Amino acid sequence: MEVEIKAEKAKIASRRLSILDENIKNSALKNMADALIKNKATILKANEIDVENAKARNISNALIDRLRLDDKRIEGMAKGLLEIVMLPDPIGNIEKMWKRPNGLRIGKMRCPIGVIGIIYESRPNVTADAAGLCLKSGNAVILRGGSDAINSNKAIAITLSKAACEKGIPEGSIQLIEDTGREEVNQMMKLNGKIDLLIPRGGAGLIQNVIKNSTIPVIETGVGNCHVYVDLSANQNMALDIIVNAKTQRPGVCNAIESVLVHKDIAKSFLPIMVKKLSDLKVEIRGCDVTTKICPDVKEAGEEDWGTEYLDLVLAVKVVNDIEDAINHIAKYSTGHSESIITENYDNAMKFLKSVDSAAVYVNASTRFTDGSEFGFGAEIGISTQKIHARGPMGLEELTSYKYVILGNGQIRK
Amino acid sequence: MEVEIKAEKAKIASRRLSILDENIKNSALKNMADALIKNKATILKANEIDVENAKARNISNALIDRLRLDDKRIEGMAKGLLEIVMLPDPIGNIEKMWKRPNGLRIGKMRCPIGVIGIIYESRPNVTADAAGLCLKSGNAVILRGGSDAINSNKAIAITLSKAACEKGIPEGSIQLIEDTGREEVNQMMKLNGKIDLLIPRGGAGLIQNVIKNSTIPVIETGVGNCHVYVDLSANQNMALDIIVNAKTQRPGVCNAIESVLVHKDIAKSFLPIMVKKLSDLKVEIRGCDVTTKICPDVKEAGEEDWGTEYLDLVLAVKVVNDIEDAINHIAKYSTGHSESIITENYDNAMKFLKSVDSAAVYVNASTRFTDGSEFGFGAEIGISTQKIHARGPMGLEELTSYKYVILGNGQIRK
Repeated sequence: MEVEIKAEKAKIASRRLSILDENIKNSALKNMADALIKNKATILKANEIDVENAKARNISNALIDRLRLDDKRIEGMAKGLLEIVMLPDPIGNIEKMWKRPNGLRIGKMRCPIGVIGIIYESRPNVTADAAGLCLKSGNAVILRGGSDAINSNKAIAITLSKAACEKGIPEGSIQLIEDTGREEVNQMMKLNGKIDLLIPRGGAGLIQNVIKNSTIPVIETGVGNCHVYVDLSANQNMALDIIVNAKTQRPGVCNAIESVLVHKDIAKSFLPIMVKKLSDLKVEIRGCDVTTKICPDVKEAGEEDWGTEYLDLVLAVKVVNDIEDAINHIAKYSTGHSESIITENYDNAMKFLKSVDSAAVYVNASTRFTDGSEFGFGAEIGISTQKIHARGPMGLEELTSYKYVILGNGQIRK
Repeated sequence: MEVEIKAEKAKIASRRLSILDENIKNSALKNMADALIKNKATILKANEIDVENAKARNISNALIDRLRLDDKRIEGMAKGLLEIVMLPDPIGNIEKMWKRPNGLRIGKMRCPIGVIGIIYESRPNVTADAAGLCLKSGNAVILRGGSDAINSNKAIAITLSKAACEKGIPEGSIQLIEDTGREEVNQMMKLNGKIDLLIPRGGAGLIQNVIKNSTIPVIETGVGNCHVYVDLSANQNMALDIIVNAKTQRPGVCNAIESVLVHKDIAKSFLPIMVKKLSDLKVEIRGCDVTTKICPDVKEAGEEDWGTEYLDLVLAVKVVNDIEDAINHIAKYSTGHSESIITENYDNAMKFLKSVDSAAVYVNASTRFTDGSEFGFGAEIGISTQKIHARGPMGLEELTSYKYVILGNGQIRK
């Protein structure tokens, strides 16, 4: 099958790619950016076919918008590749080196993972982002985009792969699976030894399908049921600003909040102000029974609201007894993405940081900062919500492994 | 089923365990060590049943030896637990912390993984080692040992779990699966969300079965087809000492070598001396056609010899054209465990370190050092031969994840 043949080719390419000099990788990335601009017309034409097909299938306007490319979006992809050029290459870095009593020096050297498979949905720009990040981190990539975007993805992948090879990147380093059937993806998830890591990017259904079926290591990304907890001692103006920012600045992304938890002793003063402000911003509030007593206009929340990632201008609100109650609620409903406590109390801040088990745990800041560039990592391939290998925003370093290098002068074990 | 009920219990325990103080964990470990000694008679009695059963099934003496406990081995397990007490607790460490232009301080804090499943074969001492390492790193553990050792494992696990609980460790932190049927292990490998990581320990068959069937993240451990490459410029006496050490000091372990590669231009001088020395030490040599021409008494190697982990006094020997040839041979046949180059040439040393893709890459030292205590990590739960999450010897830190902790003073995203 296509995926197996391409994975074997990728494995071979990955060995050569793993030891390439940084400047070869950078000149390839620049050439890839140039090529996207040069082939803009071809890519847009291919995209037009995808958009027409989507319209014929009565796909929602929101999805068509994700699918559609224009001059600006292609320039955005090219700019993304040039930003990756600017990021330091992690490969070959030795993070630490120590000496043993027998004189051996042991160091931990960064190296690529090998072959990375990306399984994604309708945004064709993922094709360029993922290819660029994998290339810079010395990994071969196998891209498996959705059928909606297949013509766009083909045009982009051919452009990138050709431009990379022109600058000395081994053939097979960037490959797209052209057969978008389910069988290919099922087989891809079982190619242990040929693909080293799978990163699914997309909705919860896609991600769960990969986790449940893959025997290759998977990084679980993205789903964010994020919380802000307003503590008894919170600066309430700060809490208000942070909640408004975390809910409304960009509601459709994974680091936006879906629930606010409020300490019971400030609920009466804080909730009416918060509800008024959010309602003015067209946020629909769904409250617990205490919330609806304090704010009678608020709709009652059901059990399912606590576990829902709305990705929309909807917010669940719950009054909690204390910080323990808040921490327990988060442990029960959170997807482990980002949570924030608003407090002026030192002990509570420390307790929240220690006890909340999410990728990013904040004190007095908006959850919207959980993002590779906001953390200072540059571009990211996704936000991991699992605890194995990498957690939180995944930049270049999270696309690497390490090996121990040991320098001796004849040591043998007694 | 038993495994699902126990995994749910472990998940609940793991939340409380994750935030326990180091001194509670240490006093539990000490109590566990004491309890093993106190319950020695009970454990030995249970072990006697396993040994008798094994004899009745005509199991090999080597396996019975692995299975058998005595006073010294139980004392060894207790000592192992006390050594874990001495290791620093990684949980809560903040490895680095940086400031962003907006004033946010972002740190990377070590935290436990959650629930770790260990699937192992006949050595009952794994029960104590794994329980101790998981406890100290704040993880709940589910132990699934082989049916051969079930009575010993039950006696050890009950002893450890009771002793841990006496000192404040939550119930469910250390659990053994008592049903050793295949169905339980199959179900265990699908408990995503309840078990966070599986570590198989044992032979290649066991490990491959877990990798091929688990949808939970797995750490691949142990199989070592390790190489020494003797470069043109090698100090030949050093090479000889290292080869003898790496092959014969303890041939049955994963970091012993199985193949020696020799540069063609020194083969005539080096091989006869090496073959003589190893033959005197009762090592059987299997050589390539060049080797057998130089040393006519050497048996000819078949293709399968290059890929075999003998775990015995057998060594495959191949003459290679140059360092590239050696690196390619290793890439083709190695299991990615440990490889060493013997050379006085700086460029070749650097090339070998860069190009060989194994967990531990040595210059001028024996591969036998790939081991948690030799690296300075203390006790290890296994040696990872994969590239995701952890590679090489896995100590306490490799049994952890991290979370980002972010300290703000009201930052919102523009």
